[in-house]
Amino acid sequence: MNALATERVRAALAAIDAVDRPEIWVTLRTAEDLLADAADIDARAGGGEELPLAGLLLAVKNNVDVAGIPTTAACPGFSYDPGQDAEAVRRLRAAGAVVLGATNLDQFATGLVGTRSPHGAVRDARRPEYISGGSSSGSAVAVALGLADIAIGTDTAGSGRVPAGLQGIVGIKPTLHVVSTDGVVPACRSWDAVTILARDLSLAERAMGVMAGGSRAWPSDVRLAAPARPRVAYPADLPGLSPAWAAEFGRQVARLEASGVDVEPLAIDGFLQAARLLYDGALVAERYAAVGAFVDGAVADGNPAGLDPTVAGIIGRAGSLSAHQYVADTARLAGLEREALAQLEGFDALLVPTAPLHPLLAEVAADPVGVNSRMGTYTNFCNLFDMCAVAVPAGEVEGAQFGVTVVGRTFDDAVVADIARRIETTPAPPALFAAGAAGPADAGRPWPLAAGASGVPLVVVGAHRRGQVLAGELEHLGAGWDGPVRTAARYRMVALDTQPPKPGVYRSDDGAELVAERWILSEAALGRFLAALPEPMLLGSVLLEDGTAAVGFACDAVAAAAGRDITHYGDWLAATAGASPGRDETGPNDPGPDNPGTDDTKPRSHGAVRDFLVTALSRGTYADTGRP
Amino acid sequence: MNALATERVRAALAAIDAVDRPEIWVTLRTAEDLLADAADIDARAGGGEELPLAGLLLAVKNNVDVAGIPTTAACPGFSYDPGQDAEAVRRLRAAGAVVLGATNLDQFATGLVGTRSPHGAVRDARRPEYISGGSSSGSAVAVALGLADIAIGTDTAGSGRVPAGLQGIVGIKPTLHVVSTDGVVPACRSWDAVTILARDLSLAERAMGVMAGGSRAWPSDVRLAAPARPRVAYPADLPGLSPAWAAEFGRQVARLEASGVDVEPLAIDGFLQAARLLYDGALVAERYAAVGAFVDGAVADGNPAGLDPTVAGIIGRAGSLSAHQYVADTARLAGLEREALAQLEGFDALLVPTAPLHPLLAEVAADPVGVNSRMGTYTNFCNLFDMCAVAVPAGEVEGAQFGVTVVGRTFDDAVVADIARRIETTPAPPALFAAGAAGPADAGRPWPLAAGASGVPLVVVGAHRRGQVLAGELEHLGAGWDGPVRTAARYRMVALDTQPPKPGVYRSDDGAELVAERWILSEAALGRFLAALPEPMLLGSVLLEDGTAAVGFACDAVAAAAGRDITHYGDWLAATAGASPGRDETGPNDPGPDNPGTDDTKPRSHGAVRDFLVTALSRGTYADTGRP
Repeated sequence: MNALATERVRAALAAIDAVDRPEIWVTLRTAEDLLADAADIDARAGGGEELPLAGLLLAVKNNVDVAGIPTTAACPGFSYDPGQDAEAVRRLRAAGAVVLGATNLDQFATGLVGTRSPHGAVRDARRPEYISGGSSSGSAVAVALGLADIAIGTDTAGSGRVPAGLQGIVGIKPTLHVVSTDGVVPACRSWDAVTILARDLSLAERAMGVMAGGSRAWPSDVRLAAPARPRVAYPADLPGLSPAWAAEFGRQVARLEASGVDVEPLAIDGFLQAARLLYDGALVAERYAAVGAFVDGAVADGNPAGLDPTVAGIIGRAGSLSAHQYVADTARLAGLEREALAQLEGFDALLVPTAPLHPLLAEVAADPVGVNSRMGTYTNFCNLFDMCAVAVPAGEVEGAQFGVTVVGRTFDDAVVADIARRIETTPAPPALFAAGAAGPADAGRPWPLAAGASGVPLVVVGAHRRGQVLAGELEHLGAGWDGPVRTAARYRMVALDTQPPKPGVYRSDDGAELVAERWILSEAALGRFLAALPEPMLLGSVLLEDGTAAVGFACDAVAAAAGRDITHYGDWLAATAGASPGRDETGPNDPGPDNPGTDDTKPRSHGAVRDFLVTALSRGTYADTGRP
Repeated sequence: MNALATERVRAALAAIDAVDRPEIWVTLRTAEDLLADAADIDARAGGGEELPLAGLLLAVKNNVDVAGIPTTAACPGFSYDPGQDAEAVRRLRAAGAVVLGATNLDQFATGLVGTRSPHGAVRDARRPEYISGGSSSGSAVAVALGLADIAIGTDTAGSGRVPAGLQGIVGIKPTLHVVSTDGVVPACRSWDAVTILARDLSLAERAMGVMAGGSRAWPSDVRLAAPARPRVAYPADLPGLSPAWAAEFGRQVARLEASGVDVEPLAIDGFLQAARLLYDGALVAERYAAVGAFVDGAVADGNPAGLDPTVAGIIGRAGSLSAHQYVADTARLAGLEREALAQLEGFDALLVPTAPLHPLLAEVAADPVGVNSRMGTYTNFCNLFDMCAVAVPAGEVEGAQFGVTVVGRTFDDAVVADIARRIETTPAPPALFAAGAAGPADAGRPWPLAAGASGVPLVVVGAHRRGQVLAGELEHLGAGWDGPVRTAARYRMVALDTQPPKPGVYRSDDGAELVAERWILSEAALGRFLAALPEPMLLGSVLLEDGTAAVGFACDAVAAAAGRDITHYGDWLAATAGASPGRDETGPNDPGPDNPGTDDTKPRSHGAVRDFLVTALSRGTYADTGRP
């Protein structure tokens, strides 16, 4: 019997005990409950149930409901029994994840430091005199210490990214509302996102694919991949970074460039202004709308609730802001967003440092509001502009983990993940789980597909294969490459007299298997591609060797008739490689010397269906049976 | 020399003088200016410039900037010189419209009655003791009296629809921001829309196609037409309507049903609750954010500005609302929107009375706030839920114009227009312009296409033609029918052995012209259609008789080989009509007795490319030349 989940839970319990970091947890589930859950997962997996996250250990920030655990948002007096899992938790559990417990946070998710909690400041995983970053502090450190595989965070101004950056792990902050916020204590309802924290991007994406599926539908023209050569902007100036941190950021930009990305500096003042608007303006009234009445009441009662004084001050003051000021600030924000996104036109993403510094606990204690504000310099604008982001580890500076974040437009989640993948320096998996990583290997498909984005497979055999001359057309449309495939043995292929040279495919009862590749693109991208498709190319259903069907290319009858049959090569690349290089300029229909088994070296006329029929018959490709 | 614009301006000047309704105008342009503009238009039209609105007379609500006219929003003290046209005005002028002047409104667009103005109450076009409706009061009456062809209104809670309904004209309230609000005095910035008023829907749509093109892009899956048999909800209860008005609404529902629409009652309480939220909650703070500082200042100075006391009271009180209350109300609104749109699932639109009553001027004077609130019962929710709407005249009740409004989801502008077209009772054109209607006839395409929505033409020859068995597939995808076309003389057509029967088309050098039809559908719809297309159908570029190309159908080689050639019919419908009805059950490949000039009555095997080649050669369709 499969006991993977049980073994992993036992190992986690031992590790949690060994690390002695009680401040990570608000509620750690009992060994009994954990082992019961694990046994259930093992039984389901053993029974053949498909569980993509079977036995993965999950920590949940305590502002997200988990059935059986009080939701406190790190304020004991706010505690309530949620009755059921938040939608994000429900999805991860249904896929086989085991919830270890509920993690500490900056109270009411108000903070980026991890120190604002009556359960104690969460300390950096490696250097305990430093902060963890927050507000998803416990979740981030649980993953960084290898206690959990994945953790749920939330992120309004950077709470899912800043601690990921400081802890050297990955944080995905998806486009707003593609993960449901049902069952989440609101911080600022308009800009709250549920995030995932994980030790590497592949695992984080796998979890996102399961967790997402919220109230917001993906658009029908969603991009499913970054282009082969993305264009990425980075800040021309780096306010708040020490020279050493700025130099490290510069190295990461250079690394990105070396990986085949076009990088370009951009003045990001508009982005940073929006960030300040979140702290200095009336937008913070959202926090009061969320929990202000509770906070006011608790303060009036002499704070039996365990309010953090800094948090209580921020939320309490937000109660006196006026509605017209809020409206004016949102209008100002909309203007900044318009300008900033216009600046980003032509770029696939913006690369920023995740946090500008990694302070000591003592530094935050000395200036809790000032340091906290600085921490959000490069994260605050993101949700306000409805952008998505992936924070990835990127080396060390002066002993600190250094992280960068790739920020992209609404719904460009797959694009930023692709770019972040070029930067990620994957740490060695923690020893605890080195041997026991659960679940199937990531299929490599972008997580928005698993999360409900619509994608249509397109099978190509020639010039649209990856690296070939027309692949850029598909990349430009946001298509993601999905690997090699083979057609069923029912197609013939000819070399067309097109510029650039292309193969033409047609279904035939004496066809062969053809080497092909599959892309996945959005419905709108496919429609746009078809609308621009030149004669003689056609698109329709193509049967693959594995019995599945996909949209693929065909050519029309006139082109099929005019083309030189190259079916026997079985592969367009082999057919083009087979042509004599010295005779290339005579065009693709010129038969090469390596072209075996046909009589295509004879002169022939092109472009006529009747020629095709006659030639096909004369060379015996088609048996001359059944003629009257 | 073309003098159409000049003649129409002269006629308008005379009519404006004759009707003696000075309250319509805040600023009427001088005859000299108007004739100069008209001469310019006439010269441009005479010079061959394409001006789709050449010589159409335009009235502009005075909260929308017109270069050379002070923008007052009906508050003299608020007046400013705009310097340039609002974007909406600029577009209409560039297309040949002549601006007659700026029209009166409920001050700051705050009201649905038309009485809240220091320039006087605007009176009903036909019964001067009744209100015009507002806030686009002057614009609506200018069109109703035939002084202007089209008029710009604005609409936050119904200001572009209520006066259209009361005045017996058409008002299009597009999806928010598809018309730019640049150069418009905000009322509630989050929910303001620029609208068009016109005497009929066709003219209103023509103007919308020119005027739209704002900051908000159409989605790539925009619906471009209502289905052939739409499904429309209507309110199960009609609060606020007199029995006579309710009966008339019932008659309109019955008329809609008789026109081929599935109608069904719906409890619309959620919609109406949102409507009340606009008056009773904190959302009205948007009005203070727009002009509150000005109003407060003017009140403090003893109102030298000409503030309407009702309007000043509403806006002034909105200044004391708190931001957290506003945030809570927007969250409540979002919840109501989610529920209401879920209720509307499966319906193409919602039909409502435009206004529930047509009050006397005296009734409004007696209870300015109460009556005004009632007027917005069926319009308020629309912009709050980001819906679009078309108000159309629909008969008379007890001497009053009766109007209904078709409300649809975001970006369903073409759908609601199609449904509204079934209801519209077009009044006779006013005598003034009966002979002189300007501009080309509407091409019949949905206005979102002219306003930048992406549409791809798809040419069909068989089962997807309008009224044929698969047309519903395209209608379901929101495709709009664009009329008959002919292919170029280069295609052959066979009858395929498919269920349902379909023609198969392939390009051939001895092809013929084929009768076809053209649909227009969104890029995403085309991609979705292709992704579901079964073998042996293919899509690609098809050349039409007129030299243009469009996406069209082909069939693959195997199917072409197996099908019975029916090219000589030139039209799938003729070919299917030509089959003997008595033998239908034998399938589409069974040759009918009327099938001339081929030897297809011989028994033959199906499904093999080689058979196709052999048969084609044997029957002489392809000349047997060039054989070695």
